Amino acid sequence: MPRPDPWRLDVTAYPWTDTVQTRFADLDVLGHINNVAMAGLFEAGRARFLRASGMFAVREHRVMLVNVEINYLAEGSFPDDVVIGTGVARIGNRSWVLQSACFQNGKCIATCDATAAIEGPGIPDALRGLLEKWAFNR
Amino acid sequence: MPRPDPWRLDVTAYPWTDTVQTRFADLDVLGHINNVAMAGLFEAGRARFLRASGMFAVREHRVMLVNVEINYLAEGSFPDDVVIGTGVARIGNRSWVLQSACFQNGKCIATCDATAAIEGPGIPDALRGLLEKWAFNR
Amino acid sequence: MPRPDPWRLDVTAYPWTDTVQTRFADLDVLGHINNVAMAGLFEAGRARFLRASGMFAVREHRVMLVNVEINYLAEGSFPDDVVIGTGVARIGNRSWVLQSACFQNGKCIATCDATAAIEGPGIPDALRGLLEKWAFNR
Amino acid sequence: MPRPDPWRLDVTAYPWTDTVQTRFADLDVLGHINNVAMAGLFEAGRARFLRASGMFAVREHRVMLVNVEINYLAEGSFPDDVVIGTGVARIGNRSWVLQSACFQNGKCIATCDATAAIEGPGIPDALRGLLEKWAFNR
Repeated sequence: MPRPDPWRLDVTAYPWTDTVQTRFADLDVLGHINNVAMAGLFEAGRARFLRASGMFAVREHRVMLVNVEINYLAEGSFPDDVVIGTGVARIGNRSWVLQSACFQNGKCIATCDATAAIEGPGIPDALRGLLEKWAFNR
Repeated sequence: MPRPDPWRLDVTAYPWTDTVQTRFADLDVLGHINNVAMAGLFEAGRARFLRASGMFAVREHRVMLVNVEINYLAEGSFPDDVVIGTGVARIGNRSWVLQSACFQNGKCIATCDATAAIEGPGIPDALRGLLEKWAFNR
Repeated sequence: MPRPDPWRLDVTAYPWTDTVQTRFADLDVLGHINNVAMAGLFEAGRARFLRASGMFAVREHRVMLVNVEINYLAEGSFPDDVVIGTGVARIGNRSWVLQSACFQNGKCIATCDATAAIEGPGIPDALRGLLEKWAFNR
Repeated sequence: MPRPDPWRLDVTAYPWTDTVQTRFADLDVLGHINNVAMAGLFEAGRARFLRASGMFAVREHRVMLVNVEINYLAEGSFPDDVVIGTGVARIGNRSWVLQSACFQNGKCIATCDATAAIEGPGIPDALRGLLEKWAFNR
């Protein structure tokens, strides 16, 4: 359980950012955003990114998530929006990692690494081009 | 199962409107917004309305939903936002109805009537004032 | 918002019953089963009923929910299971109603009427036969 | 993203197992159990374990999840139940890890490591005793 690198907490490190609304249903009995609801916010951010970036349209084969790791850093609340930053890391032959972070009122409340893999012979060229376009520039 | 009155399908009929994001998780295996997810979108709209209107702050006693009825009129999709219109109807001694409708790309896809009741001796004056402020003007 | 008829609160009135687990995520900040989560429990019960009864397999055309009405009668809790009773009412040319109730620790905590409609020329004979088989016997 | 050790795929390795129902709402547009829904199934399993083991009652201070990592190994489906196995690993001064796996029809479809930390001076003795009782015996 290594803690996230300090650069992960800086919203300007992420090539793509988007605003995602929280919902009352994201809260659990403790009154904060539930850990599974946080996974749902990251999924919402990823799904919006995949469509806005054009990646969703150039998949050719089925893409599956194979690993998701989330670090919970601070409590989230409703009804304030969150900002989700996302970039692409570690592009391999058939898999890649989307590294995201969730910010609320300027504070990083969680980070998420989601490893995806594509079926078939490998990452199609059009998809690889988009993954490289949105890779971290570090 | 009476169908909604025609005026319910007109977004300008609602005293309050707000934009709510859809999420990928709102979709079910049929690829449209699931019926329970639609209930969740209406809840999200209600929760935002209750806070923005000040009603959440002047409850004094616990408020419980006692009845929810939803008419599903057309399929909803992701990732387009929805607009949720809301107004107050039938204010009684201890209960009232929030009438809402959900619009996507200009089309009414569902209506919702949610009856709430407050514990205690009756609706507090401050809450009643806000309910009347946001009542339908028809 | 008519309250449910007294017979709706009696689990023995339902031709089909099934046990459904509650989840921690069904709870909201008030510590009880959330109203949308209750809609989800009814959906879970319906989906299990549709498969167990064979109705899911004989649809032929797409079935859509057109109306759902839930009466909330008492608070639900986690982790106790619920029992969901279901029967078929009002079978028309292209639509029918599933009437359900949710019981926890012997007490009816909610009722649900879900009206479904099938696309195409009408209810197929095989589906109609199953709907009549599971109709209320009152 | 190291893949889980082979022993993690064997249900008999887990000190505690429980059956958890799947729900129709766990499915996404691909027709399999969604990755966030899988996180929800693990949460459901953990919440049941914490209550059944008595850990929930002896917390004394607030317990927060600080890290969750899930490996997705195979697709899950509805309506079959899953079995969730759980055990305790790496008990530290203020944190510990619950290692779980989710089995459907005898096949391990996902593993989950959830690191929890308790506020205050350290793990209370009663909680530590229960954590040790449910530790992996390897």
